[in-house]
Amino acid sequence: MAIIDFHSHVVPQEYPPPPRGVDEPSWPVMQRVDGLTVSMMIAGKEYRRFGDIYWDAERRIEVLDREGIDSQVVSPLPELLSYWLKSEAAYALTEFMNGVVAKLVERAPARFIGLGAVALQSPDIAARQLEHLKRDYRLRGVQIGSNVNGVSIAAPQFESFFAAAESLGLLIFVHGFRPAGTERLVGSPLLAPIVGVPQETCMAISSLIMTDILGKFPRLKLVFAHGGGTLGSVLNRVDHVWRNFPAMQAQVGMSPVEYARRFYYDTVTFGPAYVRYLADSLGVERLLGGTDGPTEVGQKDFVRFMRDTGMSERERRLILGGNAERLLAELS
Amino acid sequence: MAIIDFHSHVVPQEYPPPPRGVDEPSWPVMQRVDGLTVSMMIAGKEYRRFGDIYWDAERRIEVLDREGIDSQVVSPLPELLSYWLKSEAAYALTEFMNGVVAKLVERAPARFIGLGAVALQSPDIAARQLEHLKRDYRLRGVQIGSNVNGVSIAAPQFESFFAAAESLGLLIFVHGFRPAGTERLVGSPLLAPIVGVPQETCMAISSLIMTDILGKFPRLKLVFAHGGGTLGSVLNRVDHVWRNFPAMQAQVGMSPVEYARRFYYDTVTFGPAYVRYLADSLGVERLLGGTDGPTEVGQKDFVRFMRDTGMSERERRLILGGNAERLLAELS
Repeated sequence: MAIIDFHSHVVPQEYPPPPRGVDEPSWPVMQRVDGLTVSMMIAGKEYRRFGDIYWDAERRIEVLDREGIDSQVVSPLPELLSYWLKSEAAYALTEFMNGVVAKLVERAPARFIGLGAVALQSPDIAARQLEHLKRDYRLRGVQIGSNVNGVSIAAPQFESFFAAAESLGLLIFVHGFRPAGTERLVGSPLLAPIVGVPQETCMAISSLIMTDILGKFPRLKLVFAHGGGTLGSVLNRVDHVWRNFPAMQAQVGMSPVEYARRFYYDTVTFGPAYVRYLADSLGVERLLGGTDGPTEVGQKDFVRFMRDTGMSERERRLILGGNAERLLAELS
Repeated sequence: MAIIDFHSHVVPQEYPPPPRGVDEPSWPVMQRVDGLTVSMMIAGKEYRRFGDIYWDAERRIEVLDREGIDSQVVSPLPELLSYWLKSEAAYALTEFMNGVVAKLVERAPARFIGLGAVALQSPDIAARQLEHLKRDYRLRGVQIGSNVNGVSIAAPQFESFFAAAESLGLLIFVHGFRPAGTERLVGSPLLAPIVGVPQETCMAISSLIMTDILGKFPRLKLVFAHGGGTLGSVLNRVDHVWRNFPAMQAQVGMSPVEYARRFYYDTVTFGPAYVRYLADSLGVERLLGGTDGPTEVGQKDFVRFMRDTGMSERERRLILGGNAERLLAELS
């Protein structure tokens, strides 16, 4: 059985200029630092530096081989999703990124499985992009943020997008980002990504449950990054309240725990005991092993991480690759 | 060994008029619905109805006897904390509430352990109130919200309050409330209390860790409601990033997991497997059994709930009362 890393990111080595006639001050520019490193500049300021591991297929494959990983699901870094750009600029940038992901996959189709990005601030454009993404770029799905400029992805305006993803058989990988209320996280600017982002993911999941996303799109395959964020802490609480409030039951007929067991979650939580708890709660067949590589804070050596869970070999094999193989095979 | 419910709330049967000369449109008024029920009106609108179980010692004791609970920690309902009122009004209302809690405790000192409330929007007033709370009302601690009008309790202006609590030997029970970003929770207005409130608690805990609250006040006893909210989901992630970022280590010398193991948490999470996970992560001696009674969504039959965790009898006895007895004995 293959070992599949379901969560990793790609950054391009350079960006094209913005489309002619589009004035977009947040269009990113890559400045070369040295042969192996670029600095991503946004509005004249350095956002972050990236090494060649982010775009170079051979370098990535070296790491996969070293870590004993057969294949890797690759998606753009969430900060490249571009929802905050003008639609035409975001369209151009995400199409470019989809091309970058597609080229990476073409270099080693046995090693990489590609997910793209779309301009979800314009749901109809995004729905059309899904067609290119499948037909032209041959990607298997799309990564989206948990909110689009502060609007939950469970809001009604995104239904046309979900409908298109379902009918095209593309999976959706939801990554928390740009959390609300970060002014309440004090002591370290890192708390926003560390604590705020997983909370965002949980807000999206609970909202998708309460708006009955799978009632509308029963064949939709939704994967949530970082173990579903903070869902595991509140899942029993949501379930408990649902059992006590007929109004909630009238809205969603299935209990929230049962509902959550119909989504997928990666294991990038850094807690072996927590992964065991998630397997208990959400079902071992719903977990997809992942690393969040090549970011600095990725889960290194994830085969050993899974061993540390103390789960049985059968369970670990499902999480390390069996579930991913089954999920990918189910996509039309 | 006694069985102690560490999390329950009190609502008064009626409120006094606001202090003379204080114009406070949000001052609450109780309207009698029938002999056993009141409706709490705020600014002319019904906020919620409450039955006599919220204020009547005998009724509460009946339930304690039925559920096999020896004693119960009682605190005002979080919505009574009054941080959004003018300071003089909040002072009057919290002093009144502290008197209500004190009278409940006086009726059956073996059955009730009282926590009060303070006007934390004025930290210096709040610090002085802690003295009355201990000397006049003979309460054992104070309940505070996770934020004060949107400002984290980890912000520097609350240090004088924590200093007073530490020096008086009063425990602090932190309850999440008034979460940020609730516009991103769609599908049910109940998601704000169900999902937003535990996320708020986690934001407070992670901020208190990163501002090193126990470095400043090493004898402070902090208890977090609802199992620390979503802390359990992100604790390993915070720890992982701390291990990778020397800047975080320079700020707080102890790893976040170790740090979190110096606080206390109630078990009101509705998930037996989750409580087991929390015991693994935070230490079984840090968990305090609780019900969140008499709210409609409290944990009924919590002795059985603890049995459902599958934990050993020794562990269950610690959580059901042993830890609470030890913690209360440690308060000066």
